[in-house]
Amino acid sequence: MRKYISEIIGTFVLVFVGTATVTIAKGDVLAIGLAFGLAVTIMAYSVGAISGGHFNPAVTLGMFINKRISASDAIYYVVSQFIGAILASAVVKFLLSSMNAPTNNLGQTDFPIISAGAAFFVETLITFLFVFVILLVTSNKYGNANFAGLIIGLTLGFMIIVALNLTGGSLNPARSFGPAIFVGGKALSHYWVYLLAPLVGSAIAAYTAKFLGSEE
Amino acid sequence: MRKYISEIIGTFVLVFVGTATVTIAKGDVLAIGLAFGLAVTIMAYSVGAISGGHFNPAVTLGMFINKRISASDAIYYVVSQFIGAILASAVVKFLLSSMNAPTNNLGQTDFPIISAGAAFFVETLITFLFVFVILLVTSNKYGNANFAGLIIGLTLGFMIIVALNLTGGSLNPARSFGPAIFVGGKALSHYWVYLLAPLVGSAIAAYTAKFLGSEE
Amino acid sequence: MRKYISEIIGTFVLVFVGTATVTIAKGDVLAIGLAFGLAVTIMAYSVGAISGGHFNPAVTLGMFINKRISASDAIYYVVSQFIGAILASAVVKFLLSSMNAPTNNLGQTDFPIISAGAAFFVETLITFLFVFVILLVTSNKYGNANFAGLIIGLTLGFMIIVALNLTGGSLNPARSFGPAIFVGGKALSHYWVYLLAPLVGSAIAAYTAKFLGSEE
Amino acid sequence: MRKYISEIIGTFVLVFVGTATVTIAKGDVLAIGLAFGLAVTIMAYSVGAISGGHFNPAVTLGMFINKRISASDAIYYVVSQFIGAILASAVVKFLLSSMNAPTNNLGQTDFPIISAGAAFFVETLITFLFVFVILLVTSNKYGNANFAGLIIGLTLGFMIIVALNLTGGSLNPARSFGPAIFVGGKALSHYWVYLLAPLVGSAIAAYTAKFLGSEE
Repeated sequence: MRKYISEIIGTFVLVFVGTATVTIAKGDVLAIGLAFGLAVTIMAYSVGAISGGHFNPAVTLGMFINKRISASDAIYYVVSQFIGAILASAVVKFLLSSMNAPTNNLGQTDFPIISAGAAFFVETLITFLFVFVILLVTSNKYGNANFAGLIIGLTLGFMIIVALNLTGGSLNPARSFGPAIFVGGKALSHYWVYLLAPLVGSAIAAYTAKFLGSEE
Repeated sequence: MRKYISEIIGTFVLVFVGTATVTIAKGDVLAIGLAFGLAVTIMAYSVGAISGGHFNPAVTLGMFINKRISASDAIYYVVSQFIGAILASAVVKFLLSSMNAPTNNLGQTDFPIISAGAAFFVETLITFLFVFVILLVTSNKYGNANFAGLIIGLTLGFMIIVALNLTGGSLNPARSFGPAIFVGGKALSHYWVYLLAPLVGSAIAAYTAKFLGSEE
Repeated sequence: MRKYISEIIGTFVLVFVGTATVTIAKGDVLAIGLAFGLAVTIMAYSVGAISGGHFNPAVTLGMFINKRISASDAIYYVVSQFIGAILASAVVKFLLSSMNAPTNNLGQTDFPIISAGAAFFVETLITFLFVFVILLVTSNKYGNANFAGLIIGLTLGFMIIVALNLTGGSLNPARSFGPAIFVGGKALSHYWVYLLAPLVGSAIAAYTAKFLGSEE
Repeated sequence: MRKYISEIIGTFVLVFVGTATVTIAKGDVLAIGLAFGLAVTIMAYSVGAISGGHFNPAVTLGMFINKRISASDAIYYVVSQFIGAILASAVVKFLLSSMNAPTNNLGQTDFPIISAGAAFFVETLITFLFVFVILLVTSNKYGNANFAGLIIGLTLGFMIIVALNLTGGSLNPARSFGPAIFVGGKALSHYWVYLLAPLVGSAIAAYTAKFLGSEE
């Protein structure tokens, strides 16, 4: 039970801090990337000590493929992550309302200037790199337990910076679902990209990391 | 005695660096968040080794609820924190005077565009998350003594970034009191929010962290 | 084989994250420096545990001079680094095409406002400092294995910040070759500076570090 | 001998990276603060393992007062620091010349909008805090050898951010001397503030840290 609460809180903080930096703080590209990334870092060093700190169904899939989490835990983790993300977007929506600001921008992800195919490629590639780093830096053979949370957060941050103007930089089906369920429109009709591409990227990462020895 | 001096210096640096980055350096939202946050980090790794590094009455309350500090120490800590914050705002006021700049902005906290209720909610939520992270990352069961000061500072920094345009991002009754006592006006008449909300958030954090095992 | 794949992936991420931050994210000077630098950091803590994390022919040369890598491995490393860099620029070019953005700026390096001699001096100096830091922080005598990847990334980041308006801040023959092969023009005709100067700087660094005791 | 060369290189990098970020990269206040600060961090983890990583006569004075360095070493350290700083400003001047940019701004320190008395107060206060943190975080009783270099760099960075619009944020007689010797004018006629105030601040820090137990 503690593990699932930890995943809810961790994913809440990831989506809350990240999307609020976009919509309320209106930070620049570096601030946005670091907000999402370092939110994962601070959660990894706190609730991550309880749950392992996934906060992302794609990460949970990679962990499941490489047998680091059981099927039943994986399902509860993913449900918890969606709950956390939805709660975060609800809070951001409430805060924007309290400012009398428009609530049609909750930091949702979309790809207004590239094709769905290109967006799928981008999300697959950056999630591949993200989950690949996670699996190595938390591995018995190559890992560094002390620095893992910092490195994982920095990886997420800079992958988002790279992709922000292309796809919004999701890498995470829960993170994209939270805002999409409230704003609808293209954030919802394009959601399939943000659901499937991170899972594909994560699966490739699991096999690549394993090939390089991460599970030895 | 050394502990109380450490709390005075630590809170002085937190308020001095943070509010001077707002008023003198005129940094952007990332610079402001990192200034407050990393000021706590540098103090945590220096005077924090003497006092534990609270620098915030809300943190001291959370520590007291979870029996990590005695009642008498808690009182002296809080007094020291207010002394440090007032000294910091006095120095910032002097420096602005020396620049012939207006001294009606000392980096005080207020909520010009949202209601008192929404402001109370924001400060409660972000202080809850902040103190919750502190209690886990410094716990025997889940903590990481080496990284705690860095994680705590990053947490404060990004909570402030999220809240800067809503409430100024205080999370700390001493930090808000320092400037308020010099500038008066709404910073003082609205001070009750910055006094009470962080304490409420901290109390919730203490029980939540305990429920997740932080005191085991 | 794992080592060479690690060098391909690591150099790919360095060039992809760095040049995409220039061309797609359009970050400011701090964002660009940190993107290149912290890309090395995250790769150092992941694939770096397999290959040692060079990602740069100049680094491999310094390691070879100080007998930390064999001649045959050094050759395979350098080939891998060029493959990774070319792949990264191919992906950046594809992404810019998908945005209908011009593809004549792939984040290539050039020195439009200074002479070739001054550019050679800049690249030699900053690569000297970069490889010098690497050789000390990874040495048996003076090194710090836990922090090495972070320090090396920060060093690269700030050397690039210093040189961005002079030479683009390469320090790495592979990083400059990736974009140059696609954009041609001065990025290619001036490539000799980015090939030779980092190697000269690295060689000086190897002897200086050795003189200070890095190989004891 | 290795120690003195290390101090020359370390101070060179501090002044070169910091002042070039001001004059060549034209970074914002956060970039400038982090450039000076993290330059110290990267030098602390490399040449700092040889010399202790002072790079600043005020730091050497604090170390000397608290008997952590001999009188003869202290003198050689200070001479080395001035040599490193002068070399750095010479290189920055050469690079600006190569860009056909004016060379009357080499990143020198001055206090155009406040009085000499206020400037003296600012430099004394921030150097006090800087050296105080150094003496605690490197102490046997309270220190953290692994994180010391990172914390010291962040402290310098944020002290400079706070003071940039007041005094330029020196905290270091060698750092101010390097540019002043080339540009003359007020940078030189006001140099006495940057020579004396950091030394006063450092002396106060030495006694305060000792009082709090740093030498136990």
